[in-house]
Amino acid sequence: MQAPENLAHYSLMQMLEGIESGAFCTEDVIHACFDQIEQREPEVQAWQYRLQREEYLAQYRSRQAFYDQSLLKGLPLGVKDIIDTADMPTELGSPIHKGRQPVDDATCVVLLKQAGAIVLGKTVTTEFAYFKPGATRNPADISRTPGGSSSGSAAAVADFMVPMALGSQTAASVIRPAAYCGAVGYVGSRGEYSLRGGQPLAQSLDSLGVFARQADDIALLRAVLLRTGSEHQTAAVEAPRKPAKILMCPGSWLGPVSVEMATALEEATEQLLKAGVTIAMLDQDVAGDQGLGGLVEHHATIMAWEVCRNLAAEAAQPELLSPQMQDLINKGLAMSREDYLAALAAVDQARLQLHKHYPDVDAIITPAAPDIAPLAEEGTGSPHMSRAWQALGLPTVTLTGVKNRQGIPLGLQLVGRSRGDDALLATAAWVNRVVEVSV
Amino acid sequence: MQAPENLAHYSLMQMLEGIESGAFCTEDVIHACFDQIEQREPEVQAWQYRLQREEYLAQYRSRQAFYDQSLLKGLPLGVKDIIDTADMPTELGSPIHKGRQPVDDATCVVLLKQAGAIVLGKTVTTEFAYFKPGATRNPADISRTPGGSSSGSAAAVADFMVPMALGSQTAASVIRPAAYCGAVGYVGSRGEYSLRGGQPLAQSLDSLGVFARQADDIALLRAVLLRTGSEHQTAAVEAPRKPAKILMCPGSWLGPVSVEMATALEEATEQLLKAGVTIAMLDQDVAGDQGLGGLVEHHATIMAWEVCRNLAAEAAQPELLSPQMQDLINKGLAMSREDYLAALAAVDQARLQLHKHYPDVDAIITPAAPDIAPLAEEGTGSPHMSRAWQALGLPTVTLTGVKNRQGIPLGLQLVGRSRGDDALLATAAWVNRVVEVSV
Repeated sequence: MQAPENLAHYSLMQMLEGIESGAFCTEDVIHACFDQIEQREPEVQAWQYRLQREEYLAQYRSRQAFYDQSLLKGLPLGVKDIIDTADMPTELGSPIHKGRQPVDDATCVVLLKQAGAIVLGKTVTTEFAYFKPGATRNPADISRTPGGSSSGSAAAVADFMVPMALGSQTAASVIRPAAYCGAVGYVGSRGEYSLRGGQPLAQSLDSLGVFARQADDIALLRAVLLRTGSEHQTAAVEAPRKPAKILMCPGSWLGPVSVEMATALEEATEQLLKAGVTIAMLDQDVAGDQGLGGLVEHHATIMAWEVCRNLAAEAAQPELLSPQMQDLINKGLAMSREDYLAALAAVDQARLQLHKHYPDVDAIITPAAPDIAPLAEEGTGSPHMSRAWQALGLPTVTLTGVKNRQGIPLGLQLVGRSRGDDALLATAAWVNRVVEVSV
Repeated sequence: MQAPENLAHYSLMQMLEGIESGAFCTEDVIHACFDQIEQREPEVQAWQYRLQREEYLAQYRSRQAFYDQSLLKGLPLGVKDIIDTADMPTELGSPIHKGRQPVDDATCVVLLKQAGAIVLGKTVTTEFAYFKPGATRNPADISRTPGGSSSGSAAAVADFMVPMALGSQTAASVIRPAAYCGAVGYVGSRGEYSLRGGQPLAQSLDSLGVFARQADDIALLRAVLLRTGSEHQTAAVEAPRKPAKILMCPGSWLGPVSVEMATALEEATEQLLKAGVTIAMLDQDVAGDQGLGGLVEHHATIMAWEVCRNLAAEAAQPELLSPQMQDLINKGLAMSREDYLAALAAVDQARLQLHKHYPDVDAIITPAAPDIAPLAEEGTGSPHMSRAWQALGLPTVTLTGVKNRQGIPLGLQLVGRSRGDDALLATAAWVNRVVEVSV
């Protein structure tokens, strides 16, 4: 990838390579990021809380020797405001937690700080990472939603304010905003990362997410989050890997999608086919209402049951909850345990079926959202395209390079094998080189 | 069950029935509990932090109308000091967190408070719920360990200081101390309860635990923790249920056990057989080194990998960690990802095998620990008898009524089906009526 002119537009790996080679220094990047923030933040509103330029520089300079020797060189990180930070408020997108100041950093924050990242600020989340939008707008088109719930993290990375950000996904909270804003969003296999200090929403569904500009940036951050990388180098990142076989799952099997989105998926798979990848269609027996398609509803059932229990404290203050959150809590409380258990059993069954029918597939390609981002006043968009994969706990990553003719991102995603996150990211890096669609 | 003379010795259900019927009032129970604490705590040392009698009474009286109408009537609860409380310190058994004061109650604490429990105090935990013992001694024999890591919760309930307490289990941290001290210890199916505000140790293994004196007490608390009970009555508790078929798993298949323990298991199963229960021996193909037996080691692998990541912040302060914790962290960091993934895959495989071979079993009966509690200077005892079941995420509960001839508890446990916690507790209530062993 060609290096852009504006340092803020570099990918994380490009920034690190530039600093290592002496082409520029960390402070140059910091200034470029703050220039971007100061220019764009009044419109985009990605930040719930953030450092000012001088505060950030003071923090970097106070331990400059450490940062300069570190893997991440003191570069800025955005952290979704559902993830605890010991030195910044964490308000969970709710007036109930106005000014809430945790005593510990979440483990994902600890690990990135230990590797030399500096938390620039907390990014806007919807209320408790559910539906009620915050103030953030889509940087690709300011009249549109950034998607939720990791709205601020997706917008801040897509709008070149920071090269990396943390999010979380319970339904579609990373993949959808990444697709809408045009960032690379990645959701880890369930159970892969420590969620200590991330506020849980639904224990059977919550996953950590990461935003960056390229798949290899994500692979690097993944190595930090898993402590699998070497401390001072970027060697852990796998080279782009050509997949042998990719399954296609039409979005219409999971919910309504626009004609543009369906066309984008067709064109992307044709490009993969031309590049020598075997493309198979997901069998409708596996994908239909009794299989993956049915998981859309089962996911919603599991989520409602678990959310109303996780949020027991907040549920006692209904006057401070949005109507959407009140509805979800009431749905969960009214639900029978049998329905909840049936939904969990259906997920287990679908997992076995998928594994049995497709033992040899590298990834599934499918829409990341039903369409381009809706207008801001219409809410944060539908989570349907992510619910089934999230119920299965599979790793997912959005593709770059798919846009409509106006340049608005039209997101596709790759779904990997459980715990096959490394292979998925290496596959995504290769696919991003091959697939470029404008519909 | 006959009501004991000392109110502090009543089970939770007996206390609630007595208060409902007007035989005595909440303050009578509070005084009985504090009498017991003041007499026994200097020796037992179950509490890391606790209210004084007058503080507790003031809290009860300040909202007496609420408590008197509530399900749990203002009765005292112990909370393991690994579970966050907003009005008491939560120090995780580590000098690193001396004086740590969380900003939120954990959700399990919220739910029990909403149902009318009052947190009497925080109970001693081993360091980060792992091996390094706290000061607590076994109330059944003060020269012995209470077991870990939920040492204080088990001792406080077994020694009649409180009728109920919360714990957590990653390896054997509820079942082993319950067995050693003579309380009923229960571990929920993995994923069953919100773990929000409980400090994670290993995300693939952590479960919430509850201590009480009878299986029906646990069933009541479970209904509160799941919000499935009615707000003002105890009707959610199922009647004791006679099991049709119980599998026996000899402890020797999981690790070394004493002759006394092996004999206790034999006698308990004979008593069940006489009472009309079909007893089957777990097949060695399923239980052997390639199956459940192998999970003992796989559990340890998963735990080491995940602990060193969850405790990233603490790992950076090795001088404040015990040698045991340092060893675990170093083991996890040195481990290959392939070994971790192989261990997870073995757990999945064993789960499928167990389900395939025994689709119709009510529970497995097996030792809860290798023997009676070791002497305090020997540590908190071996976790081997729990590792396999904990890796599988199955619900477990200790049995009452199994002791050696000196009256020291010799714990057995019942292992239930995943998400079959209600049936397991109803079965345990029935088994506790039938099984009484002294070896």
